[in-house]
Amino acid sequence: MEFEEKTLSKEVIFDGRLIHLEREEVLLPNGKTSIREIIRHPGAIAMIPFTMDGKMVFVRQFRKPLNRTVVEIPAGKLEKSDIDPLTAAKRELEEETHYRADRWEEITTMYPTPAYVDEKFILYLVEGLSKVENPLPGDEDEFIEVLECTYEEAMALKASGEICDAKTLYALLYWQLKNLEKG
Amino acid sequence: MEFEEKTLSKEVIFDGRLIHLEREEVLLPNGKTSIREIIRHPGAIAMIPFTMDGKMVFVRQFRKPLNRTVVEIPAGKLEKSDIDPLTAAKRELEEETHYRADRWEEITTMYPTPAYVDEKFILYLVEGLSKVENPLPGDEDEFIEVLECTYEEAMALKASGEICDAKTLYALLYWQLKNLEKG
Repeated sequence: MEFEEKTLSKEVIFDGRLIHLEREEVLLPNGKTSIREIIRHPGAIAMIPFTMDGKMVFVRQFRKPLNRTVVEIPAGKLEKSDIDPLTAAKRELEEETHYRADRWEEITTMYPTPAYVDEKFILYLVEGLSKVENPLPGDEDEFIEVLECTYEEAMALKASGEICDAKTLYALLYWQLKNLEKG
Repeated sequence: MEFEEKTLSKEVIFDGRLIHLEREEVLLPNGKTSIREIIRHPGAIAMIPFTMDGKMVFVRQFRKPLNRTVVEIPAGKLEKSDIDPLTAAKRELEEETHYRADRWEEITTMYPTPAYVDEKFILYLVEGLSKVENPLPGDEDEFIEVLECTYEEAMALKASGEICDAKTLYALLYWQLKNLEKG
């Protein structure tokens, strides 16, 4: 089956602080044309950090699209200056949680919304955490609370709806699997 | 800690076929102001469908933002006329895969990208599939191939990168957990 949608023309609709929106006219496999609206994103990193005593580290922050606070695993978008995603992930972990870590392992790469955003993020498993005395300062307009939760505490945050985003729900399933494998 | 970001003003930047983009000026907890760019989305449904012989049903389609085909679990966005997400999910399953199903169970609700999109989708576990003889027609500009995969075949699609979106990776982890629980 032929799937490819060839780009016939392209225009930038909006180039904002975070959102870069393009509209493409495409040629469909059946010879018709259609419009695709696409958000361009610089890419991101996210991480599943476990403390020495087996808790997972989360951050609570206000998410304006949902108009409420959400509890998520630490994550951040890549800056233009980021050559190496792992270096960016280490910086985000320190800025957001004031932790550094010994062991970083790439779990998977994930596209959260391939229907209309090209965002891709790399997800890391992070172990061997230790607190940093003079951590990197966070972004000026980010207000973040750090949480360290047992599995049961995290499940309660899921039940209450405060944990509700795809990457963090993935992290909880990953945790459940890890627990089950340990027996 | 005070987190709320109050909206000071709001403007619609773009109102397209799929993407509805707004820009809000917000008052931060520290008294400063900032800009939030937000994509409004009507919401969606996705499903993890298992055939009678324990395979998972996927769809392969071209995703213009990634400029390649992606293999995903069946999903669709809600239409304005959709009062009930479950009815919409049943329609999407039939349109995309030509299957109907006996058993529908809500697994979780998920926000794929809470940082800049308000999209929320409900994820269903779907069992007891049977082929429909005269299925509902699909969308005119959707070109879809249906796949039924064993766990090993699905893992191979993950390894090759064709399975790469958050909801489908979640479905694979869910499957792995299910297999482990069965022992």
